[in-house]
This record gives sequence, C-alpha cells and structure tokens, in this order.
Amino acid sequence: MSKQEIPYKIYLSEDEMPKQWYNVRSDMKNKPAPLLNPGTGQPLTAEELEPIFCKELVAQELDNDTPYVDIPEKILSFYKMYRPSPLVRAYCLEEKLGTPAKIYYKFEGNNTSGSHKLNSAIAQAYYAKEQGLKGVTTETGAGQWGTALSMATAYLGLDCKVYMVKVSYEQKPFRREVMRTYGASVVPSPSETTEVGKKILAQFPGTTGSLGCAISEAVEVATKNPGYRYVLGSVLNQVLLHQSVIGLEAKIAMDKYGIEPDIIIGCAGGGSNLGGLIAPFMGEKLRGEKDYRIVAVEPASCPSFTRGTYAYDFCDTGKICPLAKMYTLGSDFIPSPNHAGGLRFHGMSSTLSQLYADGYMEATSVEQTSVFEAAEQFARCEGILPAPESSHAIRAAIDEALKCKETGEEKTILFGLTGTGYFDLVAYEKFHNGEMSDEIPTDEQIAASIAKLPKI
Amino acid sequence: MSKQEIPYKIYLSEDEMPKQWYNVRSDMKNKPAPLLNPGTGQPLTAEELEPIFCKELVAQELDNDTPYVDIPEKILSFYKMYRPSPLVRAYCLEEKLGTPAKIYYKFEGNNTSGSHKLNSAIAQAYYAKEQGLKGVTTETGAGQWGTALSMATAYLGLDCKVYMVKVSYEQKPFRREVMRTYGASVVPSPSETTEVGKKILAQFPGTTGSLGCAISEAVEVATKNPGYRYVLGSVLNQVLLHQSVIGLEAKIAMDKYGIEPDIIIGCAGGGSNLGGLIAPFMGEKLRGEKDYRIVAVEPASCPSFTRGTYAYDFCDTGKICPLAKMYTLGSDFIPSPNHAGGLRFHGMSSTLSQLYADGYMEATSVEQTSVFEAAEQFARCEGILPAPESSHAIRAAIDEALKCKETGEEKTILFGLTGTGYFDLVAYEKFHNGEMSDEIPTDEQIAASIAKLPKI
Repeated sequence: MSKQEIPYKIYLSEDEMPKQWYNVRSDMKNKPAPLLNPGTGQPLTAEELEPIFCKELVAQELDNDTPYVDIPEKILSFYKMYRPSPLVRAYCLEEKLGTPAKIYYKFEGNNTSGSHKLNSAIAQAYYAKEQGLKGVTTETGAGQWGTALSMATAYLGLDCKVYMVKVSYEQKPFRREVMRTYGASVVPSPSETTEVGKKILAQFPGTTGSLGCAISEAVEVATKNPGYRYVLGSVLNQVLLHQSVIGLEAKIAMDKYGIEPDIIIGCAGGGSNLGGLIAPFMGEKLRGEKDYRIVAVEPASCPSFTRGTYAYDFCDTGKICPLAKMYTLGSDFIPSPNHAGGLRFHGMSSTLSQLYADGYMEATSVEQTSVFEAAEQFARCEGILPAPESSHAIRAAIDEALKCKETGEEKTILFGLTGTGYFDLVAYEKFHNGEMSDEIPTDEQIAASIAKLPKI
Repeated sequence: MSKQEIPYKIYLSEDEMPKQWYNVRSDMKNKPAPLLNPGTGQPLTAEELEPIFCKELVAQELDNDTPYVDIPEKILSFYKMYRPSPLVRAYCLEEKLGTPAKIYYKFEGNNTSGSHKLNSAIAQAYYAKEQGLKGVTTETGAGQWGTALSMATAYLGLDCKVYMVKVSYEQKPFRREVMRTYGASVVPSPSETTEVGKKILAQFPGTTGSLGCAISEAVEVATKNPGYRYVLGSVLNQVLLHQSVIGLEAKIAMDKYGIEPDIIIGCAGGGSNLGGLIAPFMGEKLRGEKDYRIVAVEPASCPSFTRGTYAYDFCDTGKICPLAKMYTLGSDFIPSPNHAGGLRFHGMSSTLSQLYADGYMEATSVEQTSVFEAAEQFARCEGILPAPESSHAIRAAIDEALKCKETGEEKTILFGLTGTGYFDLVAYEKFHNGEMSDEIPTDEQIAASIAKLPKI
C-alpha cells in the first residue's frame, strides 16, 4: 500500500474496537511464576488475595489459561469516551530523520489522565462497583495513576482514597487538584489516618514519604474498612490483561491497512504499557505464527531487565506485599535521579519477566539526556509533547530508524507513546538549562541491593 | 437517527476534512468596519499594514468578499497531524443532567498547545515562511497562543520571538518551558531588548508587565528587524477565517449523521473560537437558509458584548495599535480577578461585533464560580478537564439543557470546547478551596472606562 493511502492517524470505528481483552499468559508455555505469601513461601490462594483485591480481579490475576475475556458493556462505553486511541504514522519525524523506516506510534495520551493508565483504572473500578463495594484505595507517586483512578471512580460513583507521597503532594499540586476535581480524597503520605502512617511519623517526624509507605497506608485502609479494596496500576497480571486493549487496537488498525511491524518498542517500568502494547503480537510469536522483534526500553538509572536478576522479591519497599518473581534490582534499590517517575520501579511484571527470560523479548537501557533530546525532536516534528516515560521508547525508535538510514532497510517500527508531558515541565526545564543528571548505578550498588533479596 | 447509530465521537476521514476556509464576511450585508489609522482616522491600507503583518495575511484581513479560500497543502498536512478534532456526543453529561436535550461539543484541546489557537498559528507561520521571512514576533499572556505559535514555527523552521508578560513568565514557568521545547525564544516583558521596554523599565522599575506592553515590544521588534513580522492570535478577521475550520468540520460531521443544531454556543474573548465555530452556520443564517440560535458567552467580569458599547477603540492598552470598531469596555478597562485569561480582553472581533449589532447572535455573561461548577461537573461525566475559557460555554450549554428538562424539549445543542485546563490548576485549586472571586465591574467603572474612548 502506498504512502498516500495510509492516513496520518488511523482511528478505528466503534464497530472495529476490540470487545475482548487478550490474556497473553494463555499462550505462554512457561507461565509466569505465582505470587508467594512472604510468611509461608507458598503460592497465594484466591482466598488470601480477596481481602485485598476485588474478587473478579483476583480471578483474572490467577487465570493463566483463558485466552480472551469479554470486556463488560459499561467498560466498553467508558472506553468509547476516549478510545480508540489513534495509531499515528510519524511522517514528519521520518522526513526529519531522512530514514527509509516507517514509524508508527500508538498514542495513549489523549485523555485527561494523560496516559494509558485509564484503561485499567476503569476496569478495576468497574469490578469494585459490581462487587457492591463503597470504594477503592490506592497510592500514587507522581499522580498519573491516581488521576486515572479518580476519573474512573467519578464516572461510576465510587469513593476513591489516594495516598500520595508527601513530597509529590506538596511539590506537584497540579496533579493533586486534578484528582480533587474528580472527587477523590487525596491524603499526603505518611498520614495520621493509618496505624502504619502514625508509626512512621513517630519514628521519622520530618519524612517526606515514599511509595512503599503510601502502599502500606492504602492497603491498611482497604483491609480495615468494610466495603473497600486496594487497586494497583501496574505490574500485576490483571493490569496487563486490561492494557491489552492498546495492542489489540493497534493490531486491528495495522491489519486494516496491511501494515506489519518488524520491531515493536515500548518503555518499561512495571510493564503495564509494554505488556499491553505487545500482547497480541507476542501471542502470534508464542504460537509460532510470526517473528517480531520486541524491545523493552528502560532508563539507565533503573535497569531492572538489563542489569537486574531474575528472582523472587517484594513489590514494595515497605516489604508488606506478596513476593513476585521478576527481574529486580532489589526492593531496597534507590534509582539515581531520573524524572521518568513511572519507570523508577525496582522490579518488573512477572509475565514480562518470564517472556524475557525465555528469550521472547529484548531489552535496552537509555540515558536521560538522550531521552529528552529525542523528546524535543519528536515534539518539534510531531506536535505532541511526550511524557519522559514515553520518550524512552521514542529514543529507541529513533535509534532503530537511524540504523535503517545507514543500512537502507525499510523496516516498519511500532512504538507506544504512553502519555503527555504537561506535568513534567520541571524536568524539561532542567533539560533546557543543562541541569539534567545522567548518573547511573554502579555495579557495587546493584550487587549490594540484590544481596538483600529475600531468601526463598 | 436513533441514539445508538450516532457514535460518541465523530471523526472525519482525511478525505472528508475541509480543503477551504470560509470567510463569513462574504455573506454579511453590513461588512465589519475597517481598521483605522489612529493618526489620520482613515481606513488603513494594505501598504500601511504590510510592514507589520505578512502580505498575504493583510490581503486576507481586508478581503470582505471572497467566500472560500483554499487551504495551502502544507497547512492541510499540518492539520492532519492533530485534526480532525472530534465532535463528541455528551451522552454521559445528558444522562447526569436528565435532560431530553442532545448535547454535542467540538473538542479542540487534543493538541499540545491545548487549544484551537494552533489552527491560525500554522496559517500565519506558513504565510510568513512563503514570504521568505526569517521569523515572527508575538506577545502572550498566559501562554496558549505563544505555545501554538512555537509549535507552528518549529514545524516550518522559522524563528519565533515571544514577549511574555513578566508576571506570567515568572509564575507560569510550565508554559514558558513548552515554548522553549519548541525552540522559541521567550522574553519576559518589559525587557531591555526594545526601546519601548527600556523606557517602561526606566519609568516603572518594578513593573511585572502587561499585555499592552508586550504587544508594543513584539511590534517594535517585528518592524525594526528585516525579515520579521508580527502575528496575533485573535480579534483579527484573518484569524476568524483560519478558525472557520472548526465550524466547517463540525458541520460536515453533523450533516453526515443528519444532525442539526438548534443552539450553537461558544465562549468569547477576542472571538477567535466563537467566530470559527459558528462560521458556516452563520453563513446559512445570513443567506436566510437556516435560523440557528447563536450564543456568545463571556465572563461577568469582562462583559464586552453584554455591557460594553459599540465604538472605535484601541485593540491594546498601550494604544499603539490600529483602531477597531467593536463592542468594547474601553482599552483602559481592568477586568476584576478572573482566571479565564483568554477572555479578559476589553474588546471583541469587529466581525462578531457587527453580527451582534445586526441581531444575528445573542450574548450572555456568566460568573466565575458557576463556570467552575460546570467545569467540574463536565470533567466528572465526560472525562476531559476543560480550560476555564471553554467552561463558560459548558455553563451556558448546561443551562440550556436544564431548560429543556423543564420544558421537555429535545433541542440539539452544539458548543465549542476550545481547550484543556492542564495549565489552569491554580484556578481549580482556588475553586476547590472556596477562594474564587465573583466580583464584577460596577456601572460606574465601565462608564469611566468608556468615557475615555478615542474621539473619532
């Protein structure tokens, strides 16, 4: 099909939008390792998980076999408010790079949460509502997930309590105000509203909080208050299931125009975006039908795939959550300064970790300054101001396109543009002023953190 | 056509997108009054305007007769990067209001400038490039227009100098950083880079600047530097011409599904959005083919249509620009505190002013707290965080829909959702904290300001 016939942006009609999520685990020969009870070292049962998570979400978490899950009507309706997201042909970027490569991106930032997080937020809120719950609790760092969840709970009329790391609560008031606009109660963590919060405040009176502590508070409130459950925006199998809508839409749009990607690229923090984008393509690869190159891009400052180890670890720094088997830098690992808040997680989705261990994907890491250079170049050509997280994928896509320029190969590249950078302008300012850090962890730092992994 | 058959969002295909702008002046019996030279009191000629504005834009400004203007290919390509904008059926808002009315909105916020401003920015930058110029200068207050212009000049490889009111430059660093990302040089105004800036700084050493002063600096730089021209984001006839793409797309989308609006609502500051949205509908009305209700919504704090007078006035507070005949509160008018920065202009487009004087449109004013109430209600139903400016139109649309609820009428309402509120969260915070002002000007204040109008 010629260049002229493929529009800048491919939008699916409502009829063409996926009606089911795809569960990539169903096609995996080696299933992802189960979550373990940190006390007993035994796989967690549904009964153990249901006091924390909604019943239906627990079922989805543990189901490694069902290939397709119907998307409930109410979620489909909500999706129609901001989906389909466009699949965009980056004609202008290609021209600027002078590459024969064809670059496409799936843009998930055209909604008020500013990212793909909304795809799972509405699903998790829906199942909470169906279960007759009053509300949900969660933690948020920079606030992208908290915003998405607030939007979803506002739509369904559920209560939403967000524990926001105190330093972000104070320094990022804009995200907080978006959440309040959607009716969420936003509590700076640590707080006096929980036992764990009180304890930490007594121990460290001046603390500005941490994600680990915010998780602990959110889980405590969910388990102590009848009618509440805890929800999480990444890492979990259920989240990857919901996010498969990204990849399914991309695949339908590409199939419609006879486009086949050679390389699929996504940024990876906990894995929600990457897992969603690649899902149907990985399915074909697992079934031996196709052989795409699939590339995870992570920050050099937090390189769990490229420099971590594959082992059981805590998902939270507070070490109160279940153990997950994953590529990890150790739950004590403190990444060097990096503004891509969504990619600072020490571990990685168990599903993606297993796929990586089995050789179905590659991983690469990129340094922050080069990421912002790519972000700025992309913004000037394509008009969209990308989030720092998403810009990791842009960097890798540009690098692949430049390789094509050298070799003359007309490869087709698909990457995930997960969100917009409107709330990341402090980072852009540092970049413009030449004050950005490219510090990466030393081998000793990583080894020290990995040495503290729980013994299973 | 039944509810089921109309999708949530109507996107035109690239083939369906308008290829021409529509010049509403061509169908006006009473043409808008010409710009006058403040020195001579005579209509400004093309020769007088060309040292300030690009040649082709001057021609567009003065052309009251040509009904359709071809959109150049390069601009069409740029439009395809972020257009068509969706026409959205507000199903969720309708349900929440319990109204029989059908509400549609044309959403212009899905681009990095966050508003419709980009439609004219790319056109003005294009003609500057075609004329072989090096760059353009402009002023910006809150930064929406400056952002749009930076995106357009980055795309075309033109230099862009933005004079940003000093208080905004310091207090709104995010907008400034977006402009820098797109390669614009952003100068806090008043500055030492111009004669007028130096003079004002000498006279008022601690001043935080004003839009009037920023305009003066931008115009000075444009006229003193070979290869530069000045560009403006609203008020002018040429801007309304470019913005007609909003209304044309909306009309094509509605015609496609057999939808006909009874009421068309837009917020009005300088008139760029309202003029663009209503253009083709107003054309039908002027030609006697249809009879829509067309409603301009302005803030009660800056009510140029509803409480101003129709007379010649300066467009800028510095009184260096041409005189325009318009509904005005006087160029000395200082609006009471209101966060809808884009609606704080003392005057109004000459074209819209003439249409209003001739009875083709209505106007209404709304108070700030009620605007933010509407904004929050809309955000919770429809997912989009609206800009305060756009929320004036939401307020009026909700009020019309509630009237339908009382009367049982199934009216079709179309309103313009001009942009997003990501950079307006300080205002949202004030609203959440109950610190918002609903102060409106007294009759005496308006009379005093109008008494100072230039004598023509």
